[in-house]
Amino acid sequence: MNEWNNLDKLSSYQDLQKAGRVDLTKVMAGQEGSDRVGKYQAPMAAGLRFNYAAKQVDDDILKGLCKLAEEAQLASKFEELYNGAVINTGEKRLVLHHLTRGQLGGTVNADGKDKRAFYTEQQEKIAAFAKKVHNGEILNEKGEKFTTVVQIGIGGSDLGPRAMYLALENWARKNNTCLMEAKFISNVDPDDAANVLAGIDPSRTIFILVSKSGTTLETLTNESFVKDALKNAGLDASKHMIAVTSETSPLAGNSDYLAAFFMDDYIGGRYSSTSSVGGAVLSLAFGPEVFARFLKGAAEADKLSAGTDPMQNAAMLDALIGVYERNVLGYPATAVLPYSQALSRFPAHLQQLDMESNGKSVNRRGEPVDYPTGPIIFGEPGTNGQHSFYQLLHQGTDIIPLQFIGFVNSQAETDVTIQGSTSQQKLCANVAAQIMAFACGKQDENRNKNFAGNRPSSIIIGDKLTPEALGALLSHYENKVMFQGFLWNLNSFDQEGVQLGKVLAKRVLAHETDGALKAFSDLLKI
Amino acid sequence: MNEWNNLDKLSSYQDLQKAGRVDLTKVMAGQEGSDRVGKYQAPMAAGLRFNYAAKQVDDDILKGLCKLAEEAQLASKFEELYNGAVINTGEKRLVLHHLTRGQLGGTVNADGKDKRAFYTEQQEKIAAFAKKVHNGEILNEKGEKFTTVVQIGIGGSDLGPRAMYLALENWARKNNTCLMEAKFISNVDPDDAANVLAGIDPSRTIFILVSKSGTTLETLTNESFVKDALKNAGLDASKHMIAVTSETSPLAGNSDYLAAFFMDDYIGGRYSSTSSVGGAVLSLAFGPEVFARFLKGAAEADKLSAGTDPMQNAAMLDALIGVYERNVLGYPATAVLPYSQALSRFPAHLQQLDMESNGKSVNRRGEPVDYPTGPIIFGEPGTNGQHSFYQLLHQGTDIIPLQFIGFVNSQAETDVTIQGSTSQQKLCANVAAQIMAFACGKQDENRNKNFAGNRPSSIIIGDKLTPEALGALLSHYENKVMFQGFLWNLNSFDQEGVQLGKVLAKRVLAHETDGALKAFSDLLKI
Repeated sequence: MNEWNNLDKLSSYQDLQKAGRVDLTKVMAGQEGSDRVGKYQAPMAAGLRFNYAAKQVDDDILKGLCKLAEEAQLASKFEELYNGAVINTGEKRLVLHHLTRGQLGGTVNADGKDKRAFYTEQQEKIAAFAKKVHNGEILNEKGEKFTTVVQIGIGGSDLGPRAMYLALENWARKNNTCLMEAKFISNVDPDDAANVLAGIDPSRTIFILVSKSGTTLETLTNESFVKDALKNAGLDASKHMIAVTSETSPLAGNSDYLAAFFMDDYIGGRYSSTSSVGGAVLSLAFGPEVFARFLKGAAEADKLSAGTDPMQNAAMLDALIGVYERNVLGYPATAVLPYSQALSRFPAHLQQLDMESNGKSVNRRGEPVDYPTGPIIFGEPGTNGQHSFYQLLHQGTDIIPLQFIGFVNSQAETDVTIQGSTSQQKLCANVAAQIMAFACGKQDENRNKNFAGNRPSSIIIGDKLTPEALGALLSHYENKVMFQGFLWNLNSFDQEGVQLGKVLAKRVLAHETDGALKAFSDLLKI
Repeated sequence: MNEWNNLDKLSSYQDLQKAGRVDLTKVMAGQEGSDRVGKYQAPMAAGLRFNYAAKQVDDDILKGLCKLAEEAQLASKFEELYNGAVINTGEKRLVLHHLTRGQLGGTVNADGKDKRAFYTEQQEKIAAFAKKVHNGEILNEKGEKFTTVVQIGIGGSDLGPRAMYLALENWARKNNTCLMEAKFISNVDPDDAANVLAGIDPSRTIFILVSKSGTTLETLTNESFVKDALKNAGLDASKHMIAVTSETSPLAGNSDYLAAFFMDDYIGGRYSSTSSVGGAVLSLAFGPEVFARFLKGAAEADKLSAGTDPMQNAAMLDALIGVYERNVLGYPATAVLPYSQALSRFPAHLQQLDMESNGKSVNRRGEPVDYPTGPIIFGEPGTNGQHSFYQLLHQGTDIIPLQFIGFVNSQAETDVTIQGSTSQQKLCANVAAQIMAFACGKQDENRNKNFAGNRPSSIIIGDKLTPEALGALLSHYENKVMFQGFLWNLNSFDQEGVQLGKVLAKRVLAHETDGALKAFSDLLKI
C-alpha cells in the first residue's frame, strides 16, 4: 500500500538539502568531464538516450535521489496508476492514458468495460475510416478525394496533436506518407478560423470536432464558424465533419457528423495525444501505420518508466533531478530547447503538460504545501533560441535549468555542405557547444564578456526524429511530469485553476457584472 | 549631464522597498476596484490604452515610481539616446532605431552621414523596388509575377518581421493589401528550409537574405540551401534574391543579388523591425503604404515615450511597474498574453527583445550588479493559454505578473453569434474575466478550488489591430525595455552572452576539441 506524503516530510529529501553542491565549472572540465559524459546516461525507448552529465549532480546526489525515489514509492505509485487506481483524487477518476499504447499491468475495467479494449476499438475504427478516406471510399459531394484535415479543438485537443503533426510532417513527406495536410483551429478569436479557412479548399476538407463534453465554448463556436463557411460555399457540413467526443456527449450518434470516435474521462486533455484526440488527425494525415509506430515508441518508453531503478529509468531520473533543481537549488523555471525545427511546438505542448499538471499549491488531499511545485516551462527550437533569449540564459541574474533535445540526422535528408560541414552537423555542433558553454563558462577580465558557467542542462540524443522516437519523447515527458507530481504529492490530473475564469466570462457575456469587472467589460465594449 | 547609477544606489528605490504593499483582493473589489479601472490608465499611440488597475500599485507607490523615474533620469537618458549618444557602451555605438520611424530630437550624423536621411533613403529604395515587383516591372525568368517572398534570417532578422507579418496577414487580406505571401527560413536545421521550400513555388518567389555582416552562419548556410534548390529547378538564383545588409558587407554591390538594401551598426537585430530588415519583407507582402502606416504608429508611440511625466508615458510607467515587480516584489518572470491570434508570435519577439536586452549581470561600466535584472518572458495567445498554462498562473506556488493585450474588434470582421454573443465578444469577455480572477481570486472551502488571487496584470486595449496599432505596440515594448535597462543601469544594446557558444561550435566543427566537449561531439557523431 502506497503512502502519500508531502515532499518535505521525506527524510531522503531533508538529506538532499544538507548534501554538498556540484560546481559544473569544475566537474565538467578535463578528464572528469569527459568521464561524466560517458557515465551519466540512461537508456530511453526508440534508441534515444538521456544524458545528464551537465546537471548539478554527482554519485552522492544521485544516491540521494534514488533513496528519494524509493521513499516516495515512485515505481509502485506508477504501478498503482496503470492498474486503475483512482489517482485523480480531485475528480475521483482513473488515469489511463498509458492504456492507449500498450498494456502495462493487469486488465482495467471501468464503466463496465475493459478500457484497453475500448481504446483499441477506437483506434481500429479510426484506422478503418482513414483508410476509406485515403483510398477514395469516402469522398466529398462531388466525388473528389479529401486532401486536407482541420482539427477544431483547444488546449490538449490542439497543442499535443499540433506539435506531433509538425514533428512528423517533414519525415512523412520524405517517406511518402504525407497523405493529407493538417491544420488546426483553436482560439475563440474569430480571426483564427478565418485565417485557416482562407488557406484551404473547404470542399476537399474533413473537419474534426474535438470536445470531450461536447460543450467546450471555443470549440462549439468554431464549429459554427466553420459550418457557416461550408454552407456559404454550398456544401453539406455533415459530409465534412467528424467528431471525437465522449460516448455520452451530444456529438455522439449524431447525424450531423460523418463519424464519431470516442474518448473518456480517464484521459485528460494534455495526456490525449495517443488517444482518439491525436489518433484521428494523425491517422488521416500520415496513415494509421505511422500512428501505430508513434504508439509503439510511447509503449516502449512506458515500459522503461515502469522500472524500479531510477538509474535505468530516464523519466524517473529526469523527474528527480528536476525536483532537486526546483526545491533544493531553488530554480524557478525550465527551458526546453529542441535542436530540431520539427519540434517547434513541442515546448508549447510541454508547457501545458507540465504547468497544467503540476502548477498547484495544494496536495492530493487538498492541503496547502509549503514548497515550490511546478516550474515555468518555456522554450523555442535551437539554433533560433541562441539568437534570442540565450543571452539571459548565459549571463542573466537567474539560473534556468535547460533540457536540450538533439538528433544525429535530419528528417528530410536534404542538406548542403558549407565550410566543410553539413547544416545538420552545424546544428549538432551548436547544441554540444551550448551545453559546455553553459556548464563551464569562460573567465574574461572584461566582465561584460565573462561567463560564470555552472548553468545545468541535460540532453536527449536520438538518431532521427521518427514516429517511434516522437512517441518515446512524448511518453518520457508525460511520465516525468507524473513522477514529479508524485514527489510533490500533487494530483497532476485535474485543473481546477481554469474554472474561475470560465465562470466570470459567462457572467460578463450575460451582463451580470458590477465593480471592476463591469468597468473592464465596458472598456472592451462587450 | 546624466548620471548612470545602479538601481540600489537610488534613494527613491530604497524608499519603495520600505513602502507598504497593495493587496489586489481588497483594492480591486467593489467601488474602489471600479474606480481604479477608470483612474489607472495611460494613453498610448494609435488609440491604444495602457490600463494598470490590476497591478499591485496605489497612489503612494505610483508617486514613488515617479520619483524613481526622475532620480534615474529616464526621460533625459532617452533624449540623450535619440540625439545620438554612445548608449551602447560595450560596442561603443549609437542606438538609432527610433530614427527609422520619425525624427525625435536633432539631426544625428554618423559615418559622415545624416542617419535619418540614410534610413529614409533605404525605405524609399525598398518602396520603389516593391512597387516594381507588384506592378510587374520586375518579373521572373519566364516573365511571370512573383507571388511569394521568403525571408532568410535568424534572431532579430526573423522573430520581429515574422511576428509583424503574422500580425497583419488577416488584416491585409480583409483590406486587399495582401500582395504576396511571406514565409521565413531561420534555423540552421536543414529541415526548416526543406519544409518551407516544399510549400512554395520557387520560380515565383523572391528570397530576402538578411545579414548585417554578411557572415551569419545560419543565414549563409540557408542561402546555399536555397540556391541549390533554385539551381535544381533550373532557375537563376540572382534573379530571385535580394539582400538586406550593411554597406560594407560582401553582399552589398554584388551581382548575385537583384538588389541590396542597407542597415548599419546602430540598429540591433532585435530593434530592426522598423528598419530595412522588416521593411523589405513587409513592403513586399503588404505594400509600402502599409509599412508606412506601421512606422507612423511607432513614431507616435516614440513621441509619447519622450514625455517626462511617467503617468502620461505608458512605456515608462510599464517599465517602472515591471522593475517594482522584479526588484521589490521579487517576481521572476512576466507572461505576455495577447487575446489576438494574429499576435501568436508577438510573445516570441518580445522574448528576444527583453531577454536579450536585459538578461545581464553587469552594468554599463562592466561592474557586477547586486540585484535581479531582466525576467523570463514567455506567453501564448488567449484564449489558448487558458486551456494550457493558466492553471499554474492561477494556483501555482509562484506569482507571475501578466501583460494582457486585447482588441474590441477582430481583423477579418467575419464572426458568428452563438448563445447571444459573437466570438469576438467571447474573446473579450474572457480577458476581462481573467484579469479579475487573477486579481481577486475566490475563496472556497475546498482548497483545491480555492483561488488566492492578488496576482497582478495590466492590459493594453485597442479598437483593432491595424498597422498603426501594431507599430505603437512594438514601440511601446522597445521603449519599455530601454527604460528598464536605464533603471537597472545596463547596456541593453549588446549581446556578449551569445558569443561563447559560437566560438565553441566552430571548434567542434574544426574537430579541435577535447574533454567533455569532444565526448558530446562524439555522441552526436559530428
